[in-house]
Amino acid sequence: MNNKSFSLKELAELAEGEINGDEELLISGFAPLETAESGDISFLVKAGQADKLSGFKGSAVIVPMAIENAPVPIIRVQDPYLASARIHTLLLKKPFVAQGVHERSWVGNNTIIPEQVSIAPLASIGEGVTLGERVTIESGVVVGNNVHIGDDTLLKANVTIAEDCKIGNRVIIHSGTVIGSDGYGYATDNMGFHTKRPQVGIVRIDDDVEIGANSCVDRAAYGVTRIKSGSKIDNLVQIAHNVELGENCLIVSQVGISGSTTLGRNVVLGGQVGVTGHITLGDGVMVAAQSGIHNNQEPGAKVGGSPTLPMKQFIKAAIQYGKLPDMGRDLRKLKKEVAALQAEREHNDNSE
Amino acid sequence: MNNKSFSLKELAELAEGEINGDEELLISGFAPLETAESGDISFLVKAGQADKLSGFKGSAVIVPMAIENAPVPIIRVQDPYLASARIHTLLLKKPFVAQGVHERSWVGNNTIIPEQVSIAPLASIGEGVTLGERVTIESGVVVGNNVHIGDDTLLKANVTIAEDCKIGNRVIIHSGTVIGSDGYGYATDNMGFHTKRPQVGIVRIDDDVEIGANSCVDRAAYGVTRIKSGSKIDNLVQIAHNVELGENCLIVSQVGISGSTTLGRNVVLGGQVGVTGHITLGDGVMVAAQSGIHNNQEPGAKVGGSPTLPMKQFIKAAIQYGKLPDMGRDLRKLKKEVAALQAEREHNDNSE
Amino acid sequence: MNNKSFSLKELAELAEGEINGDEELLISGFAPLETAESGDISFLVKAGQADKLSGFKGSAVIVPMAIENAPVPIIRVQDPYLASARIHTLLLKKPFVAQGVHERSWVGNNTIIPEQVSIAPLASIGEGVTLGERVTIESGVVVGNNVHIGDDTLLKANVTIAEDCKIGNRVIIHSGTVIGSDGYGYATDNMGFHTKRPQVGIVRIDDDVEIGANSCVDRAAYGVTRIKSGSKIDNLVQIAHNVELGENCLIVSQVGISGSTTLGRNVVLGGQVGVTGHITLGDGVMVAAQSGIHNNQEPGAKVGGSPTLPMKQFIKAAIQYGKLPDMGRDLRKLKKEVAALQAEREHNDNSE
Repeated sequence: MNNKSFSLKELAELAEGEINGDEELLISGFAPLETAESGDISFLVKAGQADKLSGFKGSAVIVPMAIENAPVPIIRVQDPYLASARIHTLLLKKPFVAQGVHERSWVGNNTIIPEQVSIAPLASIGEGVTLGERVTIESGVVVGNNVHIGDDTLLKANVTIAEDCKIGNRVIIHSGTVIGSDGYGYATDNMGFHTKRPQVGIVRIDDDVEIGANSCVDRAAYGVTRIKSGSKIDNLVQIAHNVELGENCLIVSQVGISGSTTLGRNVVLGGQVGVTGHITLGDGVMVAAQSGIHNNQEPGAKVGGSPTLPMKQFIKAAIQYGKLPDMGRDLRKLKKEVAALQAEREHNDNSE
Repeated sequence: MNNKSFSLKELAELAEGEINGDEELLISGFAPLETAESGDISFLVKAGQADKLSGFKGSAVIVPMAIENAPVPIIRVQDPYLASARIHTLLLKKPFVAQGVHERSWVGNNTIIPEQVSIAPLASIGEGVTLGERVTIESGVVVGNNVHIGDDTLLKANVTIAEDCKIGNRVIIHSGTVIGSDGYGYATDNMGFHTKRPQVGIVRIDDDVEIGANSCVDRAAYGVTRIKSGSKIDNLVQIAHNVELGENCLIVSQVGISGSTTLGRNVVLGGQVGVTGHITLGDGVMVAAQSGIHNNQEPGAKVGGSPTLPMKQFIKAAIQYGKLPDMGRDLRKLKKEVAALQAEREHNDNSE
Repeated sequence: MNNKSFSLKELAELAEGEINGDEELLISGFAPLETAESGDISFLVKAGQADKLSGFKGSAVIVPMAIENAPVPIIRVQDPYLASARIHTLLLKKPFVAQGVHERSWVGNNTIIPEQVSIAPLASIGEGVTLGERVTIESGVVVGNNVHIGDDTLLKANVTIAEDCKIGNRVIIHSGTVIGSDGYGYATDNMGFHTKRPQVGIVRIDDDVEIGANSCVDRAAYGVTRIKSGSKIDNLVQIAHNVELGENCLIVSQVGISGSTTLGRNVVLGGQVGVTGHITLGDGVMVAAQSGIHNNQEPGAKVGGSPTLPMKQFIKAAIQYGKLPDMGRDLRKLKKEVAALQAEREHNDNSE
């Protein structure tokens, strides 16, 4: 599958690791411990599982620093998870081979397309579009008028980028995702009819962002809905108009972020979280899955629940939740007992 | 961007407002206060923020009635939010320019297409379809056989309208949304196998409905799944088979409405709400985000939680939720204290 | 609409039912009780509603065993819901009529396409694809390179099947659904940057699976994300990488299942449920809508809530939840009362 090989030394440098074994050993593939074959490198996350290395049929293993020796060549690293991601990516890397603009795609007027691109059959590119170098656009993609797409960006099948939006370099957008749909904004009269508020802004997605499948990022009412560099968004996520996501956020599947909310950098939202509009989550905020955030959160806050509580309190409350029926029963019993004690006291008082 | 201008007088009439300033002043654009330029009208929602008008560089501002004078020409209105939506929409309005049926689109047999339509390259229109006047169909749209689409309706890129469905006039459907997928219905035998129940109904969407991106409206098992006029549905919403939405409902992102449930008019469901099947929500029901509705709701009910509580009770319960760990501790302490009091009473009783 | 008729006898055999009426009566259609016409068969689920049979204008009715006689010909069955699904399906069944490969579709090199298929205009089939007999692919579908699709499978408009995935026989995938998007996996360095972990596995979907609209099934990081035979997945569902769904699961709309989680057979997840990663739900587990599952569940467990409780406890806790404000008030009152009793005791102790 891969035709390029790297020496263990080259891989160790990439992974900032230390080799115990033959530096010149050539590695050409990556596979899990169980299925690795000759030429493959594999990885082990936990030092306590070193016994898994016996019977290993591959050529080398990335291991945590705590493992000093092994029956196979090893690269010792601080973070085997990260090291293996880097090494696997390198091993998979292929030179970009431009397929050009397929005759069965559609390209509008005044669109700038470099030679080094791949545009698949049945993709549609509008007018006034600018594509960067080495852009790949799969079948069924629709790119609206006046969109700008940076270098090395990949739009998977059936993605939609609406008019005027700006997509950065090395961005990956997975199938079915819609960038630049209208924000949800209406003004309601006293008869209950809703008048659409024009949504005349755009979406701007910065470099190295990845967005999963069937997600939505709405264009701003005015101005920009912004996804800053390095943020990673999962499938079926809703990003409303005028939201701003900071750098390197992780937004897990089925999260919804309401309009005009701002997230700092490295914010992590667990699956199915809902965030209300017009609030700010500071840098590094972490939110437990299924939570509902209604208020600003200080940088570094770790919260859960709906409305959110500090994480420790949330966990305690969640555990206590299951005891609610018992608590109700205890409370009823206590009320009776206290009433009895009070009645007796009254009686004693009266009889005194 | 816009080549048409309107006098302040014309705009004030549309907005049912009163002018303080030059009635003949010409307005050609709309922008937020901060970025307005000469020729632009802007808007201010709160009278208390009148100081924002100083330094304004545009030509006029829509303001609430409470502001009587300003350093710039103003239109005073009851609801600046609504007035600005109407005026902005007017200023953006362009005459429909028919692009015709693009030679790289596909149109089936026996399909009725007026001259005044725009069908983009790589859109697919089935057989026996009827399109209204001034319909716009973007690239990647698939319209199934025997679909009817009304006048002035806009289908954004990659929308799917399945066979036999009926779409009204002035409807907007955003990218990736699917109208008329099969409802989720199976009959399970005693071996645990599921037999699909045929879904032979349709979806009917009335006039002036807008549906966001990547939403789903399933066709009825029999009969009709119905979205009545003026309802506005956000992104990633699930509307199951045989649901009926009344007029002017607001259904926020990621809501799910289960089969055969009926909503009255002007129902508002917050983001990520789930509604069970076969129930009725009366006119004007409002539901807090992330709630789960399991029972019929009286017209005008304002509810939250799962299962839902009246809104005030829900808010109190949500606040109390965070106190659950404290409550548990208090309860344990009280039990000991009451036991001690009881033991002492026993002791006293015995010793008496 | 249907040109084929079946005798009541044939239908009763399919439904494993008993006839009361003319065995040779010919049935050509299926309709609800209220709208059935001559030639139609209808169904009644509850014996208690037998009065609905009066005024029936169709030809025969499927009824529960408890109904022995009726003013119309009947087929008596154990489960009218299941029987009607089977009979309705038979009545709708049409012979497959191959439309062939439309000249306006795109088919890559080295792709194997039998004569008996229907590929619509503007569908895109990649290279090295294998299609089974009687496959139907609608417009806007994109099938990636090296995909395998089994016999009698139906891909509705705008579906995406990414490269290398394997789809079984008699599978139905509804519009907008994405099979084989990359899993959500990153390794984060100590600067907070996320490195993408290559997602080199596939999705395998077994026979008789149905997946609703705008759902996502991510490809495995390594190996296979697997949906086993007979499972039925609703709209807007998220299935993460390396998930395994057992046979005949029912996954209702807007559910999210996190990575590497395994479900046994006949698991039922209610709408908007979230399931954490790396856990196992045993055969027949049932989970209430909107629940959050954080732990392994024993086969047959019926649970609800977040974190989940046994169903009965969950229902009690949910009811008690609404009483939280009262509980808080009661608790405050009790604390005062007990403190008063204690103070008095102290006083008595001291005065004794």
